[in-house]
Amino acid sequence: MKKISVGILGATGSVGQRFIELLSSHPYFELAELGASEKSAGKKYSNAVNWIMQTPLPENIGNLIVKECVPDFHSKIIFSGLDASVAGEIETQFAEAGYFIISNARNHRFDPDVPLLIPEINYDHLSLLRSQKYKGGIVTNPNCSTIGLAMSLKPLHDNFGLESVNVVTMQAVSGAGYPGISSMDILDNVVPFIFGEEEKLETEPAKILGKFNNDRIELADFRISAQCNRVPVIDGHTECVQVKLKTKPTIEEIKKVWREFRSKPQELNLPSAPISPIHYYEEDKYPQAKIHRNLERGMGVAIGRLRECSLFDYKFVILSHNTIRGAVGGTILIAELMHAEGYF
Amino acid sequence: MKKISVGILGATGSVGQRFIELLSSHPYFELAELGASEKSAGKKYSNAVNWIMQTPLPENIGNLIVKECVPDFHSKIIFSGLDASVAGEIETQFAEAGYFIISNARNHRFDPDVPLLIPEINYDHLSLLRSQKYKGGIVTNPNCSTIGLAMSLKPLHDNFGLESVNVVTMQAVSGAGYPGISSMDILDNVVPFIFGEEEKLETEPAKILGKFNNDRIELADFRISAQCNRVPVIDGHTECVQVKLKTKPTIEEIKKVWREFRSKPQELNLPSAPISPIHYYEEDKYPQAKIHRNLERGMGVAIGRLRECSLFDYKFVILSHNTIRGAVGGTILIAELMHAEGYF
Amino acid sequence: MKKISVGILGATGSVGQRFIELLSSHPYFELAELGASEKSAGKKYSNAVNWIMQTPLPENIGNLIVKECVPDFHSKIIFSGLDASVAGEIETQFAEAGYFIISNARNHRFDPDVPLLIPEINYDHLSLLRSQKYKGGIVTNPNCSTIGLAMSLKPLHDNFGLESVNVVTMQAVSGAGYPGISSMDILDNVVPFIFGEEEKLETEPAKILGKFNNDRIELADFRISAQCNRVPVIDGHTECVQVKLKTKPTIEEIKKVWREFRSKPQELNLPSAPISPIHYYEEDKYPQAKIHRNLERGMGVAIGRLRECSLFDYKFVILSHNTIRGAVGGTILIAELMHAEGYF
Amino acid sequence: MKKISVGILGATGSVGQRFIELLSSHPYFELAELGASEKSAGKKYSNAVNWIMQTPLPENIGNLIVKECVPDFHSKIIFSGLDASVAGEIETQFAEAGYFIISNARNHRFDPDVPLLIPEINYDHLSLLRSQKYKGGIVTNPNCSTIGLAMSLKPLHDNFGLESVNVVTMQAVSGAGYPGISSMDILDNVVPFIFGEEEKLETEPAKILGKFNNDRIELADFRISAQCNRVPVIDGHTECVQVKLKTKPTIEEIKKVWREFRSKPQELNLPSAPISPIHYYEEDKYPQAKIHRNLERGMGVAIGRLRECSLFDYKFVILSHNTIRGAVGGTILIAELMHAEGYF
Repeated sequence: MKKISVGILGATGSVGQRFIELLSSHPYFELAELGASEKSAGKKYSNAVNWIMQTPLPENIGNLIVKECVPDFHSKIIFSGLDASVAGEIETQFAEAGYFIISNARNHRFDPDVPLLIPEINYDHLSLLRSQKYKGGIVTNPNCSTIGLAMSLKPLHDNFGLESVNVVTMQAVSGAGYPGISSMDILDNVVPFIFGEEEKLETEPAKILGKFNNDRIELADFRISAQCNRVPVIDGHTECVQVKLKTKPTIEEIKKVWREFRSKPQELNLPSAPISPIHYYEEDKYPQAKIHRNLERGMGVAIGRLRECSLFDYKFVILSHNTIRGAVGGTILIAELMHAEGYF
Repeated sequence: MKKISVGILGATGSVGQRFIELLSSHPYFELAELGASEKSAGKKYSNAVNWIMQTPLPENIGNLIVKECVPDFHSKIIFSGLDASVAGEIETQFAEAGYFIISNARNHRFDPDVPLLIPEINYDHLSLLRSQKYKGGIVTNPNCSTIGLAMSLKPLHDNFGLESVNVVTMQAVSGAGYPGISSMDILDNVVPFIFGEEEKLETEPAKILGKFNNDRIELADFRISAQCNRVPVIDGHTECVQVKLKTKPTIEEIKKVWREFRSKPQELNLPSAPISPIHYYEEDKYPQAKIHRNLERGMGVAIGRLRECSLFDYKFVILSHNTIRGAVGGTILIAELMHAEGYF
Repeated sequence: MKKISVGILGATGSVGQRFIELLSSHPYFELAELGASEKSAGKKYSNAVNWIMQTPLPENIGNLIVKECVPDFHSKIIFSGLDASVAGEIETQFAEAGYFIISNARNHRFDPDVPLLIPEINYDHLSLLRSQKYKGGIVTNPNCSTIGLAMSLKPLHDNFGLESVNVVTMQAVSGAGYPGISSMDILDNVVPFIFGEEEKLETEPAKILGKFNNDRIELADFRISAQCNRVPVIDGHTECVQVKLKTKPTIEEIKKVWREFRSKPQELNLPSAPISPIHYYEEDKYPQAKIHRNLERGMGVAIGRLRECSLFDYKFVILSHNTIRGAVGGTILIAELMHAEGYF
Repeated sequence: MKKISVGILGATGSVGQRFIELLSSHPYFELAELGASEKSAGKKYSNAVNWIMQTPLPENIGNLIVKECVPDFHSKIIFSGLDASVAGEIETQFAEAGYFIISNARNHRFDPDVPLLIPEINYDHLSLLRSQKYKGGIVTNPNCSTIGLAMSLKPLHDNFGLESVNVVTMQAVSGAGYPGISSMDILDNVVPFIFGEEEKLETEPAKILGKFNNDRIELADFRISAQCNRVPVIDGHTECVQVKLKTKPTIEEIKKVWREFRSKPQELNLPSAPISPIHYYEEDKYPQAKIHRNLERGMGVAIGRLRECSLFDYKFVILSHNTIRGAVGGTILIAELMHAEGYF
């Protein structure tokens, strides 16, 4: 089988580097083009990048000449790791010129005709692409703290109906990119604020869990409140969640719908799909960032501590890898879904 | 003025050591006697202890001979830093023998005639001592995660009426004593479970905020849910709090009642009392463990991020020093209050 | 091919658990028996252990009934992860009864007829087994901080002759076992002392680099000084090394002998052997614990920063995984070598 | 007594902020003027700065209007916390215009007529000021890792004669300023390289320990080698040191000269001077960053683990606060010495 040529925008940043790491051994995507800022364009990638991944930069990728982020790529499938300050316009230009943009940036997430996609949850939202005005198309990946949460909510919403959700996060420093958080700010400390994060976490789930209806998404109807903290952890977001449901199930019923949860990526056997998207742990002390973040190659969501709550129905704890499941791995899974569904 | 002789039970543990540190320069308490387990009894304290405080062990204290924890102390005022596994019985024995026990242990906290005391909040509960069956008496200090929370709730409850409280904690490792948490468990990690902690946090505030009425405490009537996490922070518990109030005030009204909150310890000008028990910070990124834990010599409570909440009325973040305000400093403040009120 | 049955002594400790993790998918060793203290003996392993590894305990291993550490195992090959307080005698008993003990404990390391083995360095010392008085035999693995150092020294000693070696270590907390170092002692701190460690590091290399001659080991003749520190790192020992050589080579000559270093385990293509035992990095900021500890599945040694030294000839930095290359992985490699050489 | 008006150059950086913190309650210096880059000049200081200290910004300082760093200050005594990229020229301009510049920057440290000063060690080098070509003068403070080392060496050099010194450092992140080291680079890690640091540590001690002779400094004649590492510690540099001496003393003799070491700042009873510049600890596990960095309000140097060394004469460990003793506190002590000696 001939591999499908793909490109990356924002290739020198930490998200871009993670894309390279995960794509360099992909079974059917071939990483062929790298775009970055003017400062880097024209240079060999290995000279343009300050490589911070824990696996070495593949030599063939290091030899690629960095391009400017303008729509003259020969690859039609473009992953965007651009910073939000520039992503909006550049992604639009590429989509207008006929490219499929699969983006990690927040800019287009709430465009009415742009899917905000987690393949296990709302794969059917991909159909929005058909109503986009672009010659190509844009699909977006949610915020890193949203993904683990939404995954835990999906089987609850489908089976018992969400009424309200309360979430307090303890987020890893890698979520802030590189250099991101100063060591002076986070060693021996908790920072109880992440700019813009609570807003994302309070708005994205309703679109993700929304219904595709007549070429538009009806937002799911439940209330949500979020509080976000940064903690001295390298990778892995921990979230304390409380839910009130329309029909109150037993604890065993909830564990069952979590453990049995499978969806389109599992049916299609997509290369980046976890075998089981949700793993429930019975030990009181689990889930933990250091122990569970690499579950299912970083694509699984770990849940534990499900128990009654006097203010809501239940409370529990979730853990997911913020830069794999919560960012780059999730974005690649979207592309795999699009390919399987015949979009390219 | 002649100083008042005091003793410590559990003097070799980490709580006991902190008592020594804070009492060794007290204006009117004189640390004269140290009790510990049989293993240590009879030894010079400096030989019995593995001193882990950051200030040196005072030489005169180091030279004291450790006693067994039996009621033959000549000091009448005894601070207890005993482990909960032995505290219950030993404390009872001392109280029966005529000593005033001021304890950090959880064993007697819910005895109906024992005050669970935070001097700024429920100083009047001290009157329970009069109905105790003991020749002496027992007063207890709440759990470290309760104290900051209760302090933030007191002005809200008095002014606007609490209906429900939701709290998620991120607690420092020093709360687990020494050696406590293994570095293998907490470096680069969050542990979403602390044994028995959520139960304490869900029950203690109702007693502390309760009304003293006819020789008994009427529990305050509000609902509360707690989730407790351990994070890689040395000192300082951070807590994300949400409240629903009977009368919803404005944000400015809440800040005002917090900032103006003063109570008995401030009136009496007790040596360990903070000038202002609550400090409110306007910066989004505050309060932080590393920056605010030593506020008012560790006796102040820092609050920030007060904002509307879609599920409750308001949410905010509190930070307090868990081994000073939340343990040893708070206990000494109780003794100062008892002295000022003429109990000894 | 029928697998070779092996057992573990000290199976519930952190070293024992790592043995289970690495052996459970071994190509030709089959983990069949687990020994531990009387307290655990007779229980199902899954009930006896507080499993702390990051991969789940294999179910078939969890179902094994723990044995006492007495020589009635049916497996002839026994890995010892026993604590030094009991290892000496138990290992002797097994060896006398005909078992091959391959041990991580320090007790027998300096017995004159016991090999202190790093397969890449002194595989020929295995011949000492023939002069052992035991019906079976004992082979030992060096201390975790010795292994990376000795590996870096071997090509220098062979090619240029060592005159003196100076080393300062920055060691990970996992080297102290579990629970090991308290979080209270190491968060935001360096502890400049590790009990017994400097002595091991100053004595083991001379035996490892010694010559097998006429049934005994002639210690290598160079001077060595060591200083050992504990740092807040989970896995991976960093060591700053200085060497004076008999013949001073150029920097390029040293890099060449490191990079080209291959030995018996590579020739024999042993399953746990790294393809290249030493990797040299040109970047000033390398090697780093977080980035290089998993090099070659934790079995490689990373070196960098080779430069002139005004007091010795050269200085450089090494990094190796202390519980894989430096302990369990190294021990399994010894067993693979013994098998390949026909000892069983 | 009328206070002496002083100014700060580079007032918004982390060094500048620490200057404000330490000077705001100084007994006879009055902080009156703040200089910073053009970007900040003209603004109220509280609006220009991102305050990161752990004590609040004094209101009167916050109200000062930031000046440009040009020599029109009315204070004659100017502390420089300027970045090395601009410090050289600006400091020269101020000195030419008649100001006394006391600088933390490295630019003028090796000018032959500029003192590189640690008041306890080479107070007499201040006389170099008389031969400076400036209308005012420049005095410099050494690098943060040099100061603890030089302090430990001074009594050895005076009493026994230094022949060679070997040092390996484990340096705190605060030494890199703010934001400085990314949390992504240092959590769970050691970085074995700090740009330019080894060079400073290998050259500064010879000037500091040099003899003032006929208007010039004769460099002290000993050999030195340094290796520098960054570790996940907030404040406090730990250094493993080895020394060879011309006359080998006993261990007790060395401890004695360290413990008895007093110098000019102690004689003059300068406000920032430690009572005892060196504290020796007998416990094997000491000194430690977390425990000893605040010794003598951060101005003391802690030493421990003195023992024989097979390659040098002795080895030992030192710990000092890198931003107080090693930077801002040391610089203020220089100003106090200059004042006491009648320079202003």
